[in-house]
Amino acid sequence: MKQYVYLFDEVKNANSQEMIFKLGNKGAQLAEMTTSGLPVPPGFTITTEGCNEFYALGKKWPDGLEKQVKEKLEALEKKIGKTLGNAENPLLLSVRSGSYVSMPGMMDTILNLGMNDKTVEGLAKKTNNKRMAFDSYRRFLTMFGDVVLGVKHSDFEKILDAAKEKKGVKFDTDLSAEDLEALIPQYKELIKKSIGKDFPQDAWEQLKLAINAVFDSWNTPRAVSYRRINHLRSDAGTGVNVQAMVFGNMGETSGTGVSFTRNPGTGEKEHYGEFLINAQGEDVVAGIRTPKPIDEMKSILPDVYKELLKIYETLEKHYKDLQDFEFTIEEKKLYLLQTRSGKRTAQAAVKIAVDMQSEGVLSKEEAVMRVKPEQLDKLLHKQLDPIAVKEKEAITKGINASPGAAVGKAVFDSETAHKMFEENPKEKIVLVRLETSPDDIEGMNVAQGILTARGGATSHAAVVARGMGKPCVAGASDISVDEEKREFSVGGLTIKEGDWISLDGGTGEVFEGQVPLVEPSLKGDFAVLMEWADTFRKLEVKTNADTPKDAETAKKFGAQGIGLCRTEHMFFEGARIKAMREMILSEKLEEREKALAKLLPFQKEDFKGLFKVMTGLPVVIRLLDPPLHEFLPKEDDEIEELAGEMNIPAEKIKSIISSLHEFNPMLGFRGCRLGVTYPEINAMQAKAIFQAALEAQAEGIKPVPYIEVPLVGNVREFKMIKEIIEKEAEASGAKGKVKYKIGTMIEVPRACITADEIAKEAEFLSFGTNDLTQMGCGFSRDDAGKFLKHYVAKGIYERDPFQAIDQEGVGGLMKLCIEKARKVNPKIEIGICGEHGGEASSVEFCHKIGLNDVSCSPYRVPIARLAAAQAAIKEKNK
Amino acid sequence: MKQYVYLFDEVKNANSQEMIFKLGNKGAQLAEMTTSGLPVPPGFTITTEGCNEFYALGKKWPDGLEKQVKEKLEALEKKIGKTLGNAENPLLLSVRSGSYVSMPGMMDTILNLGMNDKTVEGLAKKTNNKRMAFDSYRRFLTMFGDVVLGVKHSDFEKILDAAKEKKGVKFDTDLSAEDLEALIPQYKELIKKSIGKDFPQDAWEQLKLAINAVFDSWNTPRAVSYRRINHLRSDAGTGVNVQAMVFGNMGETSGTGVSFTRNPGTGEKEHYGEFLINAQGEDVVAGIRTPKPIDEMKSILPDVYKELLKIYETLEKHYKDLQDFEFTIEEKKLYLLQTRSGKRTAQAAVKIAVDMQSEGVLSKEEAVMRVKPEQLDKLLHKQLDPIAVKEKEAITKGINASPGAAVGKAVFDSETAHKMFEENPKEKIVLVRLETSPDDIEGMNVAQGILTARGGATSHAAVVARGMGKPCVAGASDISVDEEKREFSVGGLTIKEGDWISLDGGTGEVFEGQVPLVEPSLKGDFAVLMEWADTFRKLEVKTNADTPKDAETAKKFGAQGIGLCRTEHMFFEGARIKAMREMILSEKLEEREKALAKLLPFQKEDFKGLFKVMTGLPVVIRLLDPPLHEFLPKEDDEIEELAGEMNIPAEKIKSIISSLHEFNPMLGFRGCRLGVTYPEINAMQAKAIFQAALEAQAEGIKPVPYIEVPLVGNVREFKMIKEIIEKEAEASGAKGKVKYKIGTMIEVPRACITADEIAKEAEFLSFGTNDLTQMGCGFSRDDAGKFLKHYVAKGIYERDPFQAIDQEGVGGLMKLCIEKARKVNPKIEIGICGEHGGEASSVEFCHKIGLNDVSCSPYRVPIARLAAAQAAIKEKNK
Repeated sequence: MKQYVYLFDEVKNANSQEMIFKLGNKGAQLAEMTTSGLPVPPGFTITTEGCNEFYALGKKWPDGLEKQVKEKLEALEKKIGKTLGNAENPLLLSVRSGSYVSMPGMMDTILNLGMNDKTVEGLAKKTNNKRMAFDSYRRFLTMFGDVVLGVKHSDFEKILDAAKEKKGVKFDTDLSAEDLEALIPQYKELIKKSIGKDFPQDAWEQLKLAINAVFDSWNTPRAVSYRRINHLRSDAGTGVNVQAMVFGNMGETSGTGVSFTRNPGTGEKEHYGEFLINAQGEDVVAGIRTPKPIDEMKSILPDVYKELLKIYETLEKHYKDLQDFEFTIEEKKLYLLQTRSGKRTAQAAVKIAVDMQSEGVLSKEEAVMRVKPEQLDKLLHKQLDPIAVKEKEAITKGINASPGAAVGKAVFDSETAHKMFEENPKEKIVLVRLETSPDDIEGMNVAQGILTARGGATSHAAVVARGMGKPCVAGASDISVDEEKREFSVGGLTIKEGDWISLDGGTGEVFEGQVPLVEPSLKGDFAVLMEWADTFRKLEVKTNADTPKDAETAKKFGAQGIGLCRTEHMFFEGARIKAMREMILSEKLEEREKALAKLLPFQKEDFKGLFKVMTGLPVVIRLLDPPLHEFLPKEDDEIEELAGEMNIPAEKIKSIISSLHEFNPMLGFRGCRLGVTYPEINAMQAKAIFQAALEAQAEGIKPVPYIEVPLVGNVREFKMIKEIIEKEAEASGAKGKVKYKIGTMIEVPRACITADEIAKEAEFLSFGTNDLTQMGCGFSRDDAGKFLKHYVAKGIYERDPFQAIDQEGVGGLMKLCIEKARKVNPKIEIGICGEHGGEASSVEFCHKIGLNDVSCSPYRVPIARLAAAQAAIKEKNK
Repeated sequence: MKQYVYLFDEVKNANSQEMIFKLGNKGAQLAEMTTSGLPVPPGFTITTEGCNEFYALGKKWPDGLEKQVKEKLEALEKKIGKTLGNAENPLLLSVRSGSYVSMPGMMDTILNLGMNDKTVEGLAKKTNNKRMAFDSYRRFLTMFGDVVLGVKHSDFEKILDAAKEKKGVKFDTDLSAEDLEALIPQYKELIKKSIGKDFPQDAWEQLKLAINAVFDSWNTPRAVSYRRINHLRSDAGTGVNVQAMVFGNMGETSGTGVSFTRNPGTGEKEHYGEFLINAQGEDVVAGIRTPKPIDEMKSILPDVYKELLKIYETLEKHYKDLQDFEFTIEEKKLYLLQTRSGKRTAQAAVKIAVDMQSEGVLSKEEAVMRVKPEQLDKLLHKQLDPIAVKEKEAITKGINASPGAAVGKAVFDSETAHKMFEENPKEKIVLVRLETSPDDIEGMNVAQGILTARGGATSHAAVVARGMGKPCVAGASDISVDEEKREFSVGGLTIKEGDWISLDGGTGEVFEGQVPLVEPSLKGDFAVLMEWADTFRKLEVKTNADTPKDAETAKKFGAQGIGLCRTEHMFFEGARIKAMREMILSEKLEEREKALAKLLPFQKEDFKGLFKVMTGLPVVIRLLDPPLHEFLPKEDDEIEELAGEMNIPAEKIKSIISSLHEFNPMLGFRGCRLGVTYPEINAMQAKAIFQAALEAQAEGIKPVPYIEVPLVGNVREFKMIKEIIEKEAEASGAKGKVKYKIGTMIEVPRACITADEIAKEAEFLSFGTNDLTQMGCGFSRDDAGKFLKHYVAKGIYERDPFQAIDQEGVGGLMKLCIEKARKVNPKIEIGICGEHGGEASSVEFCHKIGLNDVSCSPYRVPIARLAAAQAAIKEKNK
């Protein structure tokens, strides 16, 4: 005979995967707590196997289940000294669901089971608390009626409301024992009327029905849909946990509460939690009465308080983590109802991990595993002062596109922002736009933060802001921006140019006026934890940076080089954009070369600046990538102006712009396709890199340029550009003097398929997973927002593939690429420089598939470091 | 020491791929002919390797080449009993190019090499023909001057014309020996004046220079462009064939000609060719004198004619194919100068293959291999309507040089033709030229047909047009072409550039205006050949058809079902587009469902029509695929009209259109993404399919619907849509009654990577290689034209990947997909329905990777059938 039922204290290895799957998460936890010596009310668990056989048999109990439940129930009755259905000393039970993974609120629970017309009297007598007894009975009737018998919950509420109204009171607690007693016959009548049968007085019958109800709740539509969305197994079944009820509402020596073993906000080792005297658990959560801080228990129930302190220690020693637990006191006896790993702020997470290591509870490895990498994001940016925020109301809320807080004057175009900055470099500006375009780079650069009305977490504004480490609230669709009038309005309020606003890119909230800021700290516990992390990780962490300033920030955060410098971002300022436009508008090679010659000195200085900051470390420089039309003006007046400057008819410029128009620019004339068609562009860039490296060397700097060809899909493209670069290396005299490498981005699926060809020629590869996702999944990043939200909601993708690498699809392409590349060139360096390089689950994936490095925006470098460390530790302990 | 030089009779296995590549096509053929006992003038070949090393060494001869040339030359002198440069008994040589594939007219040839001031006298004495000797010398000076020394050909012509004018005669042949002798000093002076050096009298020096010139001609712009257009290897190099000259200009018992063993236009077994008495080879091709038809030789030189008839037989028996050969008669002795597989029209190709099989020369298998699939395209296209032609009078009649009908605007130079084509690739052009030259290749390539005023059936225009399968009327000598004025006139009528003309290359007739075209006939030899093909092929051939009419055409062409029916094409007519727009503009589910209900009956009837035509055969129906904005109007007035019809403000429609705008529609909201977001659309389509199938069954039709989900990248998308379809199958009562399958397009790279997941759910897969190429290579088909031509020109891709499958990249994704899919579902049916499905090399690839079927447009079905057969035969014989 199979064992379908286990007493909490007869389970071995409750924490094993096997037992968690067998008993369900909750059953295993109760067993774990019990066998650890924690004071848990006794009970037993029916296995998930029992549930599955129940379904297999067409909703019938398998052989032996009834017998085993009876046996375990008897053992339980013996342990607690009460008997189910006994009129003198009645045992009351809770019956709860619990599958291998918690599905909060999705399945059913029944409390106070065992209540009937007789036991209510017995309970009243035994506890000398008639009110509590009838309160429990009417609660049970409501819950059992609703969950097990299918009577509408609101119908019970109506009867209760009528009673309160009749008495002229507001709260349930204002009803007397007699008032509650008077509800019972009304409730029973409601049940009979609704289901045509009497409420079952027999407690055993109640238990059987309740167990069936929990089994049934495994397959309610909401549970099925929750499992689909969260990709949980539909064949797992639920366990059923039957446990003795204990009562916090047995008078002034009883109570209930929740507590954390440390302060989850600050991480301080202090007693954090609340309790209520003479109350059941739901009262604390419901917020009807205001609970007291845990330390007040010292004076009210000193013995219980002492026991509680011991429990803090036992919990942390056993679980090695911050615990969040619920307890009930029944006539001075403390019971733990449940405990779990507590949610905490980033600051607390870091402090607790480091403290627990010095307390000897955790090893360094364990401490590193205790902090979620994504949480660090919050630690690295200035924050709005939480106290000040509490008193304000947000004027709107958009998408939390780039974390950190910004306070500044609203400005509605880049040019004005730039002018204000030039006049006063200390001017605080928040750039407010309908949406941003590459023309806004300058404005974004001088702004404290960016607010847009359109676009999502991967819009231009969001991506560039994250790259710059600037706070950004994107897609605040409630605000209506009038760029001409230079104002925006929302909810009757109008913010004009120059008015102060504050925004929190971590929450998406926008406030009127200046909210005070608080500084992040990168020292202390944070620094200690990051140092530990670095001892574990295998992945190098580089940064995506286009300017010496960004590079310096990243280095401060621990970047080991630049993994992606986008040279096109260097072409948008003043004289540069002019020369760039001249180049694009040229029809002859000589004209293009003349314009390019003007760009050369700028590029050279840019590269020198980067080499200086990153001396001795690799600097991956990507050759020109975007479609040329991005550099040309869009508006008529801008075109007229350009025409005047260049002494070309405006019509001609328009015709060139229109000839550069593309239906799908993403798949168009860009990347190395520019260089294949106009080799002189890449030649100029290579020349600038080599000249910069030579000059830097002369100044004692150690430049390590990695020259990167973008958008290669065919090895012949790469070879063609490589030749151009090598020719410039020779011509500049850098050959043999400067240590450089030539490699390519892997962004086109075809590059993955033919990686064995490409790797024969390239010295390094770097996955551009943004574009690889666009092409691999066929999603335009600019457009997919419309349907990707449906896709995530319906569980087609677990997460937005632009936020976390789609490991199965895009990841499959990556694995294929790595395998093919390493086969022909085992020493090839392979990295990633898409935005995924700063996202924890993606970093873990990169570790698993054997990348050499990840590169991300400066502010995400610590996240990548921690994620890389955790990935290495997980692998080691597997 | 490598052997760079081979005498014709010392080559073994001349016909092997290895030797053809080594000696070039022409060298291998001369060796093959010689060793087969055909009367070939003796000679030797310098290998293509010699040419490649010449380039590798910076245009220097490799070690040993000079010594070997001298040795072989001596052997040759011994064989023919003449000596190069010998004043008494001079040997004259031809020096010709020849790569692994024939490139007619693209590279250089020098004839009469060895002529100088002394040998001319010796030749005159020996042949007792002073005129012939000086004619040869002045020809040699012209050719050597032009080709080797770079003196303008027309400058020689001017001197010649002056001499003729002075004497008052019209033809070269009217000039006496003395007249010709008088030209020599003038020619030599012209050379000295032009290049500052004397014409080299030393024959060995002449030979070395001529060999260099042939090497050089491998890389002339026109040769490079020819290779690009014809997808030939650019690294192959040319061989150099040095051969004893024989003389057709030794008087009335000498002559020269070209002939085909059968009629290359019609395929008839008849003597086809032309000859000129007392002439050298170039005179026939140049079209200066009009040659005589071959059969006239019977009366002029009966013994030679008899020998020629024997040669026809020997050639076809040896080569088992139509041969195109050049011959020279030197004083009644017949020499074969070259023979090659003859270019032929599609019609001729089919007829010759079928005839040769019944003559016992070819097996059916060999016959099937003799016809190029792409050629069939010409057979399947239209002819001038014979009834319309009856009522019209031809404005002129020329030589029926290449059959088929062309209707287009007269254009008088290649450049203009090419420009017009670039502006509008659908432009219909007829290229009209005095005569064509290799410079006209580009213009001929974009023209519907070619009309020349000069030249015969073997003129440049005729040969190239047949090769391209383009209709050509050559030598329409009545018309007077004014290339400068851009017009031609004939019988008082003037046709200006842009005027429409029609021509029939099968009759040689030219008409003014646009003559209607009629369908071709698919019976007779064509049907026989296709039947044979079908016995060999493994691939099923289906068609892409959206209407019963297309489906019927395709069935006539042998389609075995519909491989792709694009349902969206059904939504563009009258009432349908209105309901479709209503659906798109609806904001609520119920409104959308109401609009969809209007579309249902249309769809149902469409599907019934297809089932009827294809009864018993699969009909793959793709669910709605394009982005919704394609159905909405673009112009303001259309929007206003729609607004009026729908009673919605125009502003609202505009705002919906703008909300549907996408940056990269190719990667946007389309395909199954529509169905995932608006399941009701696919539900309606599924319902229409099942209702149509049930109604069709009731009428005795056997519907076999294959329902295809487009743009699947993730198995969960497919499952979701499959559920919708299955629900409609149940609801309509089709479940269990109609045999249907549910499958998906494979267009997204991610679908290939995760094909093992998808194949668990899908019953069939169909590669949409258009989109798979777009996403796999990252090329927008709408935009890539701009740079893809550079890419093909630079050899990055051998062919445009949208025309022929990129086998390495996109093909790699396909292979991966097939492997993964068959692993989990060995029975899954896999096909292709991109445009590649009707392109021969792609069909062969599909066979190789093990697809079950290909689907293509109706007119390409026979091409696919033949290509599939050839692929199977090739594989068998490998």
